[in-house]
Amino acid sequence: MVFDQSLGVIRMRYRFGVDIGGTSVKAGVVDENYRILSRGSVRTPDTFEKSMKAVADLLFDLAGQMGLSESDFSCAGFGVPCSVIPGTGRLVFANNTNWKNVSIKNELSKYLSIPLYFGNDANCAVIGETLAGAARGKKHVVMITLGTGVGGGIIIDGKMFAGGDGLGAEIGHMPIVYNGIRCTCGLSGCFECYASATALIRQTKEAMAAHPESALNAWAKEHGEVNGQTAFDCAKEKDPAAMEVIDQYTSYIATGLGGLVNIFRPELFIIGGGVSNAGDALLDPVRAKLSSYTLAYDVVGSAPVQKAILGNDAGMIGAAYLDQMN
Amino acid sequence: MVFDQSLGVIRMRYRFGVDIGGTSVKAGVVDENYRILSRGSVRTPDTFEKSMKAVADLLFDLAGQMGLSESDFSCAGFGVPCSVIPGTGRLVFANNTNWKNVSIKNELSKYLSIPLYFGNDANCAVIGETLAGAARGKKHVVMITLGTGVGGGIIIDGKMFAGGDGLGAEIGHMPIVYNGIRCTCGLSGCFECYASATALIRQTKEAMAAHPESALNAWAKEHGEVNGQTAFDCAKEKDPAAMEVIDQYTSYIATGLGGLVNIFRPELFIIGGGVSNAGDALLDPVRAKLSSYTLAYDVVGSAPVQKAILGNDAGMIGAAYLDQMN
Repeated sequence: MVFDQSLGVIRMRYRFGVDIGGTSVKAGVVDENYRILSRGSVRTPDTFEKSMKAVADLLFDLAGQMGLSESDFSCAGFGVPCSVIPGTGRLVFANNTNWKNVSIKNELSKYLSIPLYFGNDANCAVIGETLAGAARGKKHVVMITLGTGVGGGIIIDGKMFAGGDGLGAEIGHMPIVYNGIRCTCGLSGCFECYASATALIRQTKEAMAAHPESALNAWAKEHGEVNGQTAFDCAKEKDPAAMEVIDQYTSYIATGLGGLVNIFRPELFIIGGGVSNAGDALLDPVRAKLSSYTLAYDVVGSAPVQKAILGNDAGMIGAAYLDQMN
Repeated sequence: MVFDQSLGVIRMRYRFGVDIGGTSVKAGVVDENYRILSRGSVRTPDTFEKSMKAVADLLFDLAGQMGLSESDFSCAGFGVPCSVIPGTGRLVFANNTNWKNVSIKNELSKYLSIPLYFGNDANCAVIGETLAGAARGKKHVVMITLGTGVGGGIIIDGKMFAGGDGLGAEIGHMPIVYNGIRCTCGLSGCFECYASATALIRQTKEAMAAHPESALNAWAKEHGEVNGQTAFDCAKEKDPAAMEVIDQYTSYIATGLGGLVNIFRPELFIIGGGVSNAGDALLDPVRAKLSSYTLAYDVVGSAPVQKAILGNDAGMIGAAYLDQMN
């Protein structure tokens, strides 16, 4: 809230929170209670310049629909699906968009005059969940998002931690299997290669090939394709091959979280992303296995593991509050 | 320096820095320029109570030799070879001493009345190296010590990072091999199981068994035993089996550092401990391989890898300054 001297009234101040994805851009008007008052999205255009123009247009539309102008907003924050230098908004590694070494800040500054902040999308998600979601009130949080890849976000002492130069917290690219599977990033054995939705689907298909009699194959025939839900659905029906897939998949997740708990000792782990919709069928085995990867577990215990609760909103809310968490 | 009103002079203030090991306790009088002015050591007695009494006696001796009394010291800091709760000095996991769940602070307070600070020994080492050694002037540093185990210390933004509850930064117990070798800590696949001096010796012995003709066997016969130097010495003479040992060992180290660089993006890695005495024969292959484990290496580069330069003094100096780095 700010006091507007010219009008002699107290007015709300808003923030734009923007989640820039490879296929679409989602934006919201976020208030000081972390509520999204208005939201919209556009498909990501084919070039970087067109995309930035589309983002700015989307923000002006959202503001206009609420009868607001840019001056009603204290800032705009942007989550991007890649490594980004926070100060300059320079994208240094954008797997999904082919934008590389361009300055999102310079381009957006052509249209917007309020302060602009930038962060990795997974970092924005952990900020959102910490301010308004599953980790509300916590000071030390590690979040992983299990989607196409594995995103990571870390809160230390109430602030976002993105590494010494702002390009870190790439939890998905911590190796957990020495000389393991080649990752899309070019490295090998990355956590992401074993714990992402993509990995779960691969593991499910491998089990289907090894066990043609399994319920997994019947499920795939019925649904037309294998997805991150296949093994969970069949494991619920006690299909042995599916149960083995879930057992191995959750072991990989616990292995990664084990390294993280021994280093970060967070108060809470949050798991988001599409696979987290499986709920306790995913979380319970991860919780049980995590003890086997926690140093001195019998003396100091481990960290609880909870499901993210804000879904896609976490990224928008977190982006809107990037300035307060650095 | 402090102004002593009663004498009307400026007097130096000193700090005790203590490195408590499983077999011996080393202590030093450290000045405000991080110099160790006086030092001493005692063998670690067989019980916890006797050990703490011996530590206090050692400190009084050191002060007495310099004509100082306890009041000339601003504090005493203690590095311990285990997890320790910083505020209470409670030891929660002491592999090497069998001290578990005892309060070092309570016991030492029977003898000492100055402020007492406690930290893990590897955390103390990275503080020492950052204040006065290889990482002087750096704000973001990750150090590993390659000895009996693998110790870890992390500096973030100029402060020691030991996890949310002070029991973290256990880099040695980050799994790098899924379902790997059982660690002495009870977990499996820990970085320590592949990158410690103990691991290097095991890998060397395995190579000796597989290659009876190798120079490794001749070296062992001549020196009476295998140690962390064996493979480096023989690799220098181009023994193929030894070169393979070093190649694999440095790959394991690079794998662990890779996970850390993608998360912490430090300005510098420091490697200490006995194995680091091999110098560039160890560091050069680690540096070369680290690029293969660094996300977007071609765009953002990795972190330099340097040898620790303070040896055992790092732990004492760091312990003496624990209060300033928390």
